Amino acid sequence: MSEATTTDSAVCPDPAQLAGPLPGFDDILKAAGRIKDQAVVTPLLEYPALNAKTGGRILLKAETLQRTGSFKFRGAFNRLAQIPEETRSLGVVAYSSGNHAQGVAAAAQILRIPATIVMPADAPAIKIANTRGYGAEVIFYDRYSESREGICERLTADRGAVLVRPFDDPQIIAGQGTCGLEISSQAAERQAAIDQLLICCGGGGLTAGCCLAMAERSPATEVFCVEPEDFNDTGRSLAADKRLANKPEARSICDALLAPTPGMLTFEINRRHLAGGLTVSDDQVAQAVRYAFEVLKLVVEPGGAVALAAILAGCIDTKGKVIAATLSGGNVDRALFTQILTG
Amino acid sequence: MSEATTTDSAVCPDPAQLAGPLPGFDDILKAAGRIKDQAVVTPLLEYPALNAKTGGRILLKAETLQRTGSFKFRGAFNRLAQIPEETRSLGVVAYSSGNHAQGVAAAAQILRIPATIVMPADAPAIKIANTRGYGAEVIFYDRYSESREGICERLTADRGAVLVRPFDDPQIIAGQGTCGLEISSQAAERQAAIDQLLICCGGGGLTAGCCLAMAERSPATEVFCVEPEDFNDTGRSLAADKRLANKPEARSICDALLAPTPGMLTFEINRRHLAGGLTVSDDQVAQAVRYAFEVLKLVVEPGGAVALAAILAGCIDTKGKVIAATLSGGNVDRALFTQILTG
Repeated sequence: MSEATTTDSAVCPDPAQLAGPLPGFDDILKAAGRIKDQAVVTPLLEYPALNAKTGGRILLKAETLQRTGSFKFRGAFNRLAQIPEETRSLGVVAYSSGNHAQGVAAAAQILRIPATIVMPADAPAIKIANTRGYGAEVIFYDRYSESREGICERLTADRGAVLVRPFDDPQIIAGQGTCGLEISSQAAERQAAIDQLLICCGGGGLTAGCCLAMAERSPATEVFCVEPEDFNDTGRSLAADKRLANKPEARSICDALLAPTPGMLTFEINRRHLAGGLTVSDDQVAQAVRYAFEVLKLVVEPGGAVALAAILAGCIDTKGKVIAATLSGGNVDRALFTQILTG
Repeated sequence: MSEATTTDSAVCPDPAQLAGPLPGFDDILKAAGRIKDQAVVTPLLEYPALNAKTGGRILLKAETLQRTGSFKFRGAFNRLAQIPEETRSLGVVAYSSGNHAQGVAAAAQILRIPATIVMPADAPAIKIANTRGYGAEVIFYDRYSESREGICERLTADRGAVLVRPFDDPQIIAGQGTCGLEISSQAAERQAAIDQLLICCGGGGLTAGCCLAMAERSPATEVFCVEPEDFNDTGRSLAADKRLANKPEARSICDALLAPTPGMLTFEINRRHLAGGLTVSDDQVAQAVRYAFEVLKLVVEPGGAVALAAILAGCIDTKGKVIAATLSGGNVDRALFTQILTG
């Protein structure tokens, strides 16, 4: 683990169009109302063993137990539910390494909207199978040589379908913010004032949504994003105060967190609210996945385990503190999971 | 899966001494008060995917997330907390395949009572390591040739220590009953009237405690015990209305559920309250463990998955019903877990 530092990675070109205005806290409250009959209010788990190990009070938001196995359903359902009835038959298109894919596919199935998902050819088999299981059409692309945005633009132009961005969309961010809303109220229910909240961070949608929720409901809480060490674009961008990209040759076992750059909207929110960025190595992530298996009895995918990894690796001072962290997803293939367990 | 049937297994000899009077609902309420600062109020989980698969509403009591990774901490802490201060230094002795061992060891550590645990030599390594991790001394015996009760009697006689039985003790039963208490109140909170409650059953302590709790708090709920097919002593004993033993040559992957006979106290309670007994094969248990991994994102040990297995295998009609089930423990070795996942 290292502190977030600025590197020579390329500055992101700003796209011509913003995906929308910045969402606010009110959008999160409205999102909570929209998703409440479909999403799971996931538990905020506490383990005496983890508290004893860290000397603090650790509260884990188990989004692994969310519908579709990750937090992504929150934003997807919130976004899709706002597509007008009369245009739903034209369908939705999304690109995703898997968790957003499942979230959009499941939300589309509930709302009876045809869904096409553009997924990297190397996405975990379980994520591909589940996406198809929710009735979506899956189209593959090469993560390292093709532009998923380009493929999606062609699909939306050809079909008139709505593009559902994985994070850079105000209603996606607002939906993910319902996770932060639940964290703050569940912590309050047990009289816990959260000192720090650690969020697993890819494109920054969950981070931005939780920042907005905590700013309103628990302003004293410091929020940190946690990223794989070679995909610390948000952490480096915070330090540079401009959006920086990851190196094209970067690799990680955290398949859910491989977004090339912070989103425009998400970074605009995150730069205002985040206390900082933390990074973890793939080895630390694997240790956290094993700890989740052995002690927490939870199946956590690598990308969903980075915040826990930061705690276990001592990236943040836990002694006497109340630390909340997201376990953001649990969609991991049997093969990779057994490899990590035996590794 | 087969219905519980009477076989030619031996009738249990009744021991000379009963372990105590039958516990009542009031003992469960008192137990809840004793354990509340130490035990975890585990979540009652609900999954849209499992509801859709079964056509019912399935509520899973995740005792996998309990302190020590199984429900056993509840009874152990409730029992040990009632040992008078002045005799605590003489210690406690317990026999257990592992989950009761961990429960007693953890409770003893909290209460500063020396603990000696007699464990089968083939107990899962994780259970042995954890028991030692809580500071207990571990003594091994051969599950199939030695009498664990005999070893424990010698130890208690030699040391003056208190024998903490795994299930046939009114305060152990009362402690496990707090699980049922939580199930009934958590179901009520979400306006769910439980039609059937399925309990993973070894010696019958959790079953008996939950029977007592539901009889008081949710009398319309039918309670079923679920057992491995060659360890269906409680189910057969119910049918015969007398305590029957399992065959000595019986084997199962459900190491937590291999008690040779129903307890005297537990059976006395269970025969009055249980609606019936269900059985599942080891293959059905393995399928449930895999389902818990892939869909529920939970690590469940084989013995903790029998109630879920009964639901998934169609042992009970779930259509339109509210079915609650215990996931009673999650202490499974990496090796067995990966074998089940890849099996």
